[in-house]
Amino acid sequence: MTEQRTGRVSRRTLLAGGAGLAGIGIGAAAVGVGREFSSPDPAAGSGLTPFYGTHQSGIVTPAQSHAQFVGLDLVDPTDVDTFAGVLRLWTQDASRLTRAEPSLSDTEPELAVLPCNLTVTVGLGDRVFRAPALAPLRPSWLAPLPPFSIDRLDPRWGQTDLLLQIGADDPVALAHATRMLTSSVRRSVRVRWVQRGFRNSPGMAPGTMRNLFGQVDGTVQPSPDDYGSLLWDDGREQPWMAGGTSLVLRRIAMHMDTWEALDRRGRELSTGRTLDNGAPLTGRDEFDDPDFDASRGGIPVIPPSSHIARAHRRAPDEQFIRRGFNYDDPPEAGSADTSNSGLIFAAYQRDPVKQYIPVQQRLDEHDDLNEWTTPIGSSVYAILPGAAPSRPLGASLLAAAGRSG
Amino acid sequence: MTEQRTGRVSRRTLLAGGAGLAGIGIGAAAVGVGREFSSPDPAAGSGLTPFYGTHQSGIVTPAQSHAQFVGLDLVDPTDVDTFAGVLRLWTQDASRLTRAEPSLSDTEPELAVLPCNLTVTVGLGDRVFRAPALAPLRPSWLAPLPPFSIDRLDPRWGQTDLLLQIGADDPVALAHATRMLTSSVRRSVRVRWVQRGFRNSPGMAPGTMRNLFGQVDGTVQPSPDDYGSLLWDDGREQPWMAGGTSLVLRRIAMHMDTWEALDRRGRELSTGRTLDNGAPLTGRDEFDDPDFDASRGGIPVIPPSSHIARAHRRAPDEQFIRRGFNYDDPPEAGSADTSNSGLIFAAYQRDPVKQYIPVQQRLDEHDDLNEWTTPIGSSVYAILPGAAPSRPLGASLLAAAGRSG
Repeated sequence: MTEQRTGRVSRRTLLAGGAGLAGIGIGAAAVGVGREFSSPDPAAGSGLTPFYGTHQSGIVTPAQSHAQFVGLDLVDPTDVDTFAGVLRLWTQDASRLTRAEPSLSDTEPELAVLPCNLTVTVGLGDRVFRAPALAPLRPSWLAPLPPFSIDRLDPRWGQTDLLLQIGADDPVALAHATRMLTSSVRRSVRVRWVQRGFRNSPGMAPGTMRNLFGQVDGTVQPSPDDYGSLLWDDGREQPWMAGGTSLVLRRIAMHMDTWEALDRRGRELSTGRTLDNGAPLTGRDEFDDPDFDASRGGIPVIPPSSHIARAHRRAPDEQFIRRGFNYDDPPEAGSADTSNSGLIFAAYQRDPVKQYIPVQQRLDEHDDLNEWTTPIGSSVYAILPGAAPSRPLGASLLAAAGRSG
Repeated sequence: MTEQRTGRVSRRTLLAGGAGLAGIGIGAAAVGVGREFSSPDPAAGSGLTPFYGTHQSGIVTPAQSHAQFVGLDLVDPTDVDTFAGVLRLWTQDASRLTRAEPSLSDTEPELAVLPCNLTVTVGLGDRVFRAPALAPLRPSWLAPLPPFSIDRLDPRWGQTDLLLQIGADDPVALAHATRMLTSSVRRSVRVRWVQRGFRNSPGMAPGTMRNLFGQVDGTVQPSPDDYGSLLWDDGREQPWMAGGTSLVLRRIAMHMDTWEALDRRGRELSTGRTLDNGAPLTGRDEFDDPDFDASRGGIPVIPPSSHIARAHRRAPDEQFIRRGFNYDDPPEAGSADTSNSGLIFAAYQRDPVKQYIPVQQRLDEHDDLNEWTTPIGSSVYAILPGAAPSRPLGASLLAAAGRSG
């Protein structure tokens, strides 16, 4: 079984020729010699990403430079009419904002007009399905993850009733869209947390993202050929979910202070990939298949305890879309750490119980990288099927419950 | 006396033809009809901004898309040798990082190689000058601002011994540079606060920035012809300061909840400018001179209590460079506000006592905009003269104190 290269070809990679940072040498001393800079892609960040569709955007959409994950709780989770009203309003406003048009009651319309691949993606937490009308419609996998021994979960980043995932290639437009989508519904929902993440500026570093450890992060992705089986719900269990998917959202603290005390070789062994271009330690290029059987002097080249050896799928189901963002917040008051950085890990799959959890259980048993990372937040959402002008977000759910969307 | 148009012609304005958002209509309904999008400027964000020079960069450098202002305290503010060591290390590392080269002991060199107009600007707070060797060398204006009645200062955002102002057109490179510059000196200084700000992504919205109220913010700027008298210290009072300047850094909370309850006309009257393009209410274009004498039916077109009427300079000295950034943090726990947004207001001038304070005192007496804004942080820094390969930051100060830089 081999790791699988991403089939997603992003607009950025195509236009920028994928040259990326390939010219960078392995050590600090070698960096800066003879390297080629890739120019920013002039088209990056300036597009409109359609809001309406069979599936919601923001899942297989090339990741934007900025994202906010907003966790919200319904003031009254049993009030299905109000819940339906929130989804209608979000549909209306998101369909406008993603076209670079002000929302219906936009209070700062000038901040709404920049085309920057804004996407708005809406998910539902399990508590929504405690409303009697919705209870029979809960997808069976929509439940808290089992506890993992590595978790140090802070309830501050815990499960919420609703999720707004908002992404954009411009931070001002993103702040504005977030404001409009949350302030319009303030009587019905309360914001519990906001997780703000970033990647490189539009077009500036094509290819797979790097996290703040400097690692290439997100190389292994399912092929688009398999989205039908691995990503999009077909409605077999819950007909209303056809076209939807699930999101496992984990906030993973990355301990810069101890990581930076480790030498470069130790870092590469802990991950199983090189730092310079993310190639497996048995390969030359990022997308080379790792050879877990290769050994040198009787010692495996990729340690069996390394992150890629442990994360590598052992069954065809163990695949999911990874679309994470870095976070870098000011250190908490009283913290001994000099940083408060990490990854907003976002994994999309049809069924987290079959796809995400087995992998995470293996990483929980052992993953060398656990030494420098700690999951501090965790939640699971049902990502609604896509909307259409005549079919707001949640229409199929509400119809199945005998309500109008 | 007239308001003065900025003389700064930014690279972005030139390349993008300054079309900006000029096509936007005045009301929400009109926005979206017949507007022209300006394409991102492909060269924006991909440059190197020289670190060495007579003056530090990051002051008249076109504002980058992201900035972090880091306030730090010396562990022992009387230890001048350690202070000198910090400045030497920052010079060394900043000169490399701004060339898109890893710092000397860079722990994530792959995050250092993106040319994104990184600038590093270093300032000194007044407490540094309590060291006996430096005491006689304190610029007379380097002192806390007088109290203003509108201030609700949170000591969390107060004066620090040192300031690192780091700007970049890429958030990953910015996070990395901040990490390197702060972790290398962790034994000698402690980070007290980090203020993270943003504007639009590189090249995406040429022209004057908009704040999160939607206002065009920063139209009035000194002419480069006057930088000699208004911006750069000539060393007359403290010879070591020649080529330096001062920074007044204010954290200004902007109360979105109450602002958004105000109608569009009320907002424009409070500021004295239109929201659509920032023109004074007596003009058509952003840079038109406001006519404070114009009236309609006996009522002044620009209210004398409006922000621009009160902020407008009444003496030639009352000018300074404004180079602010938006902030948009998650609401504080327990806050009644649904937002925690505002402006990191950064004003640079040769002498804040003569230039900034008189304007701020007038705004403190009355400014209609005070209803929706509150200063919650305040500090003043001496911005060191520029460095050269043979002359680290602070060299002239340390030489004047009889120490080597």
